Amino acid sequence: MSMNIAVFGLGSMGYGMARCCLRAGNTVHGFDVMAEHVARFIAEGGRNGTVADAALTMDAVVVVVLNAAQVESVLFGDDGIVPRLRPGAVVMACATVPPEFAKQMEQRCAAHAVLYLDAPISGGSVKAGEGRLGVMASGSAAAFDAARPVLDATAETVFHLGDAAGAGSAMKAVNQLLAGVHIATMAEALTFGMTQGIKPETFVEVITKCAGNSWMLENRAPHVVAGDYTPHSQVNIWPKDLGIVLEAARASGFQAHLTETALAQYKRAVEMGLGREDDAAIAKVYARAAGLVLPEDQT
Amino acid sequence: MSMNIAVFGLGSMGYGMARCCLRAGNTVHGFDVMAEHVARFIAEGGRNGTVADAALTMDAVVVVVLNAAQVESVLFGDDGIVPRLRPGAVVMACATVPPEFAKQMEQRCAAHAVLYLDAPISGGSVKAGEGRLGVMASGSAAAFDAARPVLDATAETVFHLGDAAGAGSAMKAVNQLLAGVHIATMAEALTFGMTQGIKPETFVEVITKCAGNSWMLENRAPHVVAGDYTPHSQVNIWPKDLGIVLEAARASGFQAHLTETALAQYKRAVEMGLGREDDAAIAKVYARAAGLVLPEDQT
Repeated sequence: MSMNIAVFGLGSMGYGMARCCLRAGNTVHGFDVMAEHVARFIAEGGRNGTVADAALTMDAVVVVVLNAAQVESVLFGDDGIVPRLRPGAVVMACATVPPEFAKQMEQRCAAHAVLYLDAPISGGSVKAGEGRLGVMASGSAAAFDAARPVLDATAETVFHLGDAAGAGSAMKAVNQLLAGVHIATMAEALTFGMTQGIKPETFVEVITKCAGNSWMLENRAPHVVAGDYTPHSQVNIWPKDLGIVLEAARASGFQAHLTETALAQYKRAVEMGLGREDDAAIAKVYARAAGLVLPEDQT
Repeated sequence: MSMNIAVFGLGSMGYGMARCCLRAGNTVHGFDVMAEHVARFIAEGGRNGTVADAALTMDAVVVVVLNAAQVESVLFGDDGIVPRLRPGAVVMACATVPPEFAKQMEQRCAAHAVLYLDAPISGGSVKAGEGRLGVMASGSAAAFDAARPVLDATAETVFHLGDAAGAGSAMKAVNQLLAGVHIATMAEALTFGMTQGIKPETFVEVITKCAGNSWMLENRAPHVVAGDYTPHSQVNIWPKDLGIVLEAARASGFQAHLTETALAQYKRAVEMGLGREDDAAIAKVYARAAGLVLPEDQT
């Protein structure tokens, strides 16, 4: 059963998801502010055109943009797609956004008889390209049903976290708290180890087999060892995502001490001009403060 | 080739190691300040007696006590064993201690022609009982050779970190930095999730399959879900071990921001009377500060 799908945001995650939707036999319209992303997608069999034209035939709209402001713009901005969608179409919203914002979007979509799946994603660009993402999803049964073909094409695991928007984004915030703190902790431990005579490659070799390991350490520490800060996931993501955590925490009277500490380190990284580097570059904040020289760090 | 081995400290780690040495066919003397630990070990085929008598025949002395002060007391205190050992016997020191302290012990042993293996362990009491520990070891080739039968009986993985004491303890400090911060981060994320409507069991189910996972989260979060704070590893360990990290960091002009933040939470846990509970009880510090009720928390 072929669907008409629009994907907004053809970055490292959205591009992979759009391609997976194509491969599954759907008609896929791709939108992105970067013309070269769109051109690349059309060369692979994707479509483009105007949002107004596309909206008429869409069954599902997948939003894989950077933040809440971009989600709102795509859905309800001047050229917003939601008011033009047919009743029963579904918006699958994959950006990391505040849980409260997801609830508002669900309500505003409902006013247009459009379904909304709160569906933040996890797994990185490689898994996105393979259709093996984890999706932390919440929404009505009708929203899950309508989004099913997209979920089947893009996800390895779909977590059903509740019957209304907000729960998916809440779980994503929890995951980002952990992931963001773990990357910073990897950086702290790797550079501390250097002060004690432990080489970064020895650190990775030993710790990945010990109780100090984390998913993020195993994934990111090799970037530091290689001195390769090609942005698989940018430093800039963390002030935003940890900001979402702290905003939700504050509203609940919760003190997230480690999140605050990690956020301060990411902010220092941004101030040092590292915002567009891979987030493993937070190691440079520690290294420079302690006068350490990281492997092949040529910046 | 059967050896004469003395094990000092028959707690959760030392007892398992002593038993593994026994099973491998060695003659093993066990020492502990708790008479019931010694009695239990003798019932399994272990020996006891006086340190002075035991020392004469020992090939290897395994020290699995709590801290540097206890190590020094066992080795060089009033009843210390090192001055009574035959030349060429080896001390395998498994406690988490400052790297500088390990170097001092190696020198003081050398003055008695006794070998020293800086050999902190990782893996927990279950693996200790199975002879499947990770050992972060450094020392002379002669020390490694002399300790080989003990390593074979107790370890799954032996990391060779250098040819002198200090490197093993440095790597253990790095591991403890990560492990200690990861446990506290698990607690912060789990309780933050509760403020957002995420049940602790859902947290564990989802996060252990996502990028926010860590070895410690997977191991400790189920204790919080079960409300079971039986001490597999006590809160009290962390002010000591993170203190070792911060001491070494300070001496190197290194600022370990996340370690400092986590340490403050462990100290709060101790002040709340949770020192002897399982270290997952650090979740109670967050829960009480935010007015949350953890599963089956009856304390």
